[in-house]
Amino acid sequence: MNNRIKELFNIDYPIIQGGMVWCSGWKLASAVSNCGGLGLLGAGSMYPEVLREHIQKMKQATTKPWGVNVPLLYPDIDQLMNVIVNEGVQIVFTAAGNPAKWTGFLKAHGITVVHVIANGRFAKKCEEAGVDAIVAEGFEAGGHNGRDETTTLTLIPHISRLTTLPLIAAGGIGTGRGMLAALSLGAEGVQIGSRFAAAEESSAHTAFKNCIVKTGEGDTLLSLKKLAPVRLIKNAFFEKVHDAEIHGASIKELQEILGRGRAKKGIFEGDLTEGELEIGQVAALIDEIKPVKTIFDELLSEYRHVKNDLINNATFQL
Amino acid sequence: MNNRIKELFNIDYPIIQGGMVWCSGWKLASAVSNCGGLGLLGAGSMYPEVLREHIQKMKQATTKPWGVNVPLLYPDIDQLMNVIVNEGVQIVFTAAGNPAKWTGFLKAHGITVVHVIANGRFAKKCEEAGVDAIVAEGFEAGGHNGRDETTTLTLIPHISRLTTLPLIAAGGIGTGRGMLAALSLGAEGVQIGSRFAAAEESSAHTAFKNCIVKTGEGDTLLSLKKLAPVRLIKNAFFEKVHDAEIHGASIKELQEILGRGRAKKGIFEGDLTEGELEIGQVAALIDEIKPVKTIFDELLSEYRHVKNDLINNATFQL
Repeated sequence: MNNRIKELFNIDYPIIQGGMVWCSGWKLASAVSNCGGLGLLGAGSMYPEVLREHIQKMKQATTKPWGVNVPLLYPDIDQLMNVIVNEGVQIVFTAAGNPAKWTGFLKAHGITVVHVIANGRFAKKCEEAGVDAIVAEGFEAGGHNGRDETTTLTLIPHISRLTTLPLIAAGGIGTGRGMLAALSLGAEGVQIGSRFAAAEESSAHTAFKNCIVKTGEGDTLLSLKKLAPVRLIKNAFFEKVHDAEIHGASIKELQEILGRGRAKKGIFEGDLTEGELEIGQVAALIDEIKPVKTIFDELLSEYRHVKNDLINNATFQL
Repeated sequence: MNNRIKELFNIDYPIIQGGMVWCSGWKLASAVSNCGGLGLLGAGSMYPEVLREHIQKMKQATTKPWGVNVPLLYPDIDQLMNVIVNEGVQIVFTAAGNPAKWTGFLKAHGITVVHVIANGRFAKKCEEAGVDAIVAEGFEAGGHNGRDETTTLTLIPHISRLTTLPLIAAGGIGTGRGMLAALSLGAEGVQIGSRFAAAEESSAHTAFKNCIVKTGEGDTLLSLKKLAPVRLIKNAFFEKVHDAEIHGASIKELQEILGRGRAKKGIFEGDLTEGELEIGQVAALIDEIKPVKTIFDELLSEYRHVKNDLINNATFQL
């Protein structure tokens, strides 16, 4: 049996670069696609015309398959979808919403559609909507996250029991070991965010990338659960939010603390104090800013090495 | 290279049954040891004389290796440790505290000592204390849990970089797939709690076991973070706690809501409304109450099946 994720996207490795606000522009996404993975433009932080520009640059930068990630809570989503269709984008990942809304429209334009979910209830909705594959993302992931707090280790086998759709694991994966674990659990591919956010080609501010490198285990926490849960690095802004949450702050109070443009401030402008620093727990395993090519080499070589070990080492013969 | 967990305990399979309050008495622990794993008496819910009784029954029920799990916050811990030493227990797992306190005492009595940790800071403390192996337990685990909320998927590779001590993965593991994932991540063995809590031989109330079977994905949440974080099934008691937490309840208020004996009430007496129902996220993958022998057969056969698939199926050749 061939790998359905590789076949669906016509890529060499079932490694998808997660679409990330302020990180995954055409430079990062094309580098990933040129390495044989699937690069995704993160439309969540782009005005429709900015997305058009990135799509056009993307077409110059790679002849390999690539896609666009669209958070379904995007305010001017009609305009965004029109750009996607007009520019002939062939792969779209939708997230943070109901797949019933846009899947039909995209499929009618011949686009391959993948939807990101964080729980089992949405697996059924994905099937009904007619998506081509599912990304299941666990609690350890960076940025916005589900309310069920189900971790990748329990989510992937759960979802793989619920659906026969090709499954991509996300959340906590940034190494070859993590890839092997994800595939052991029932996924056929992986989506990697944080590791690529810290890549040389990521459009994030260097100060933010250095911050990812320094972020250790226990340095992030799922926050703002009364608004939309988001995993943040524990900086000064986080502490302000956390303190308010401990004291039972209302939705309105939290909205006021959050304000606007926090993610841009932190990730793109490099304000490590007042910005919203979205990253996954796997940041603990990220030690250096590296080019995408090096990251790919390391992912694949660790995957192969550990897999060989699993086969040949007596430790794993049960 | 041989499996160091198997060698350390002289067992056939590197499968440890987690010591669990009100679940793991001599019946469950001896059944696990008789299957070739390592059964652990959960001393956390036993008076010293009750533990002595279980130890004595254990000696009748199995000739295979077994141990005792001791939460270090146990009130009369000196008495408990004396029972352990006097009865000639050979393996002790300590948890929920600093390994520096008791490891030397136990080692001086020739006892093999394993300590349970939930973050990297304690890996160093374990080495300094001289423990023989480490259990690293992720956020998805049932019962009491760390404050860092690090999931098993990120915790295991992190800890395995920090120490060369033999490593046992815990949290979210209840199937052969989970075992294979844990070993891919750098562990040499697994500790399984929830799956055995629902075993026929578990001393939990049948109502609680049936409740585990019914517990789906998203039906537990880490709660009481202002006291000691504990993963609970979302029953009426949980809702009371959760509502208080959302409104910023103080430590004192939460202590009053919690009261005493809640875990016994829920797990041992089967009060599904007012009891504290401690279980891991992996409950979503537990569908039936089964004898330990069947659970072992299923764990091993799924492990072998998925591992063969990983080796032979083109899906996994990267």
